[in-house]
Amino acid sequence: MEPHQQLCPKFEAAFRLLGKRWSGLIIQVMMSGPKRFKELSEAINGVSDRVLTERLKELEEAGILVRRVYPETPVRIEYELTEKGYDLRAVMQATQKWGETWF
Amino acid sequence: MEPHQQLCPKFEAAFRLLGKRWSGLIIQVMMSGPKRFKELSEAINGVSDRVLTERLKELEEAGILVRRVYPETPVRIEYELTEKGYDLRAVMQATQKWGETWF
Repeated sequence: MEPHQQLCPKFEAAFRLLGKRWSGLIIQVMMSGPKRFKELSEAINGVSDRVLTERLKELEEAGILVRRVYPETPVRIEYELTEKGYDLRAVMQATQKWGETWF
Repeated sequence: MEPHQQLCPKFEAAFRLLGKRWSGLIIQVMMSGPKRFKELSEAINGVSDRVLTERLKELEEAGILVRRVYPETPVRIEYELTEKGYDLRAVMQATQKWGETWF
């Protein structure tokens, strides 16, 4: 038996989240700081507004990002990774490196 | 735009694979060396033989592991991670660490 084996269901949940189309890319784009919806949709080729909205909601529910509403005129809405979200950097980098080596 | 952004579809594919139930755990158990089917099924609580067989096939098709048949009597069959599979160690460890911190 491996140490920490009992944690696997949790990290499978993390992988499932990250494995959904666009989720990894959304997180990667947000690693550089808060983004508006339009910035995300422009940075990510091929994602529809409907699907991007859906993914942002899922990531918000998972505690990976927060949606901030600034009561300006016009209202400004930004999405920002939480500490939990930013902390995925090492996972993203390790997977990135694996992908670069093996694909 | 982030560097390497174009790789994301590939690592989303990796995350999808790892996000399937039991896959992460199978890989983790195999990190310590080749395993027989019975060793895997005993190490992983709750997985049925049917589902374990299915996951092993998927991981074999993805080039993560190989199935070796030794023509002994009785025949011996072992599953072993490929170099590509063993190279997931850093991904597993980073995700493990993230899971330990945030769950």
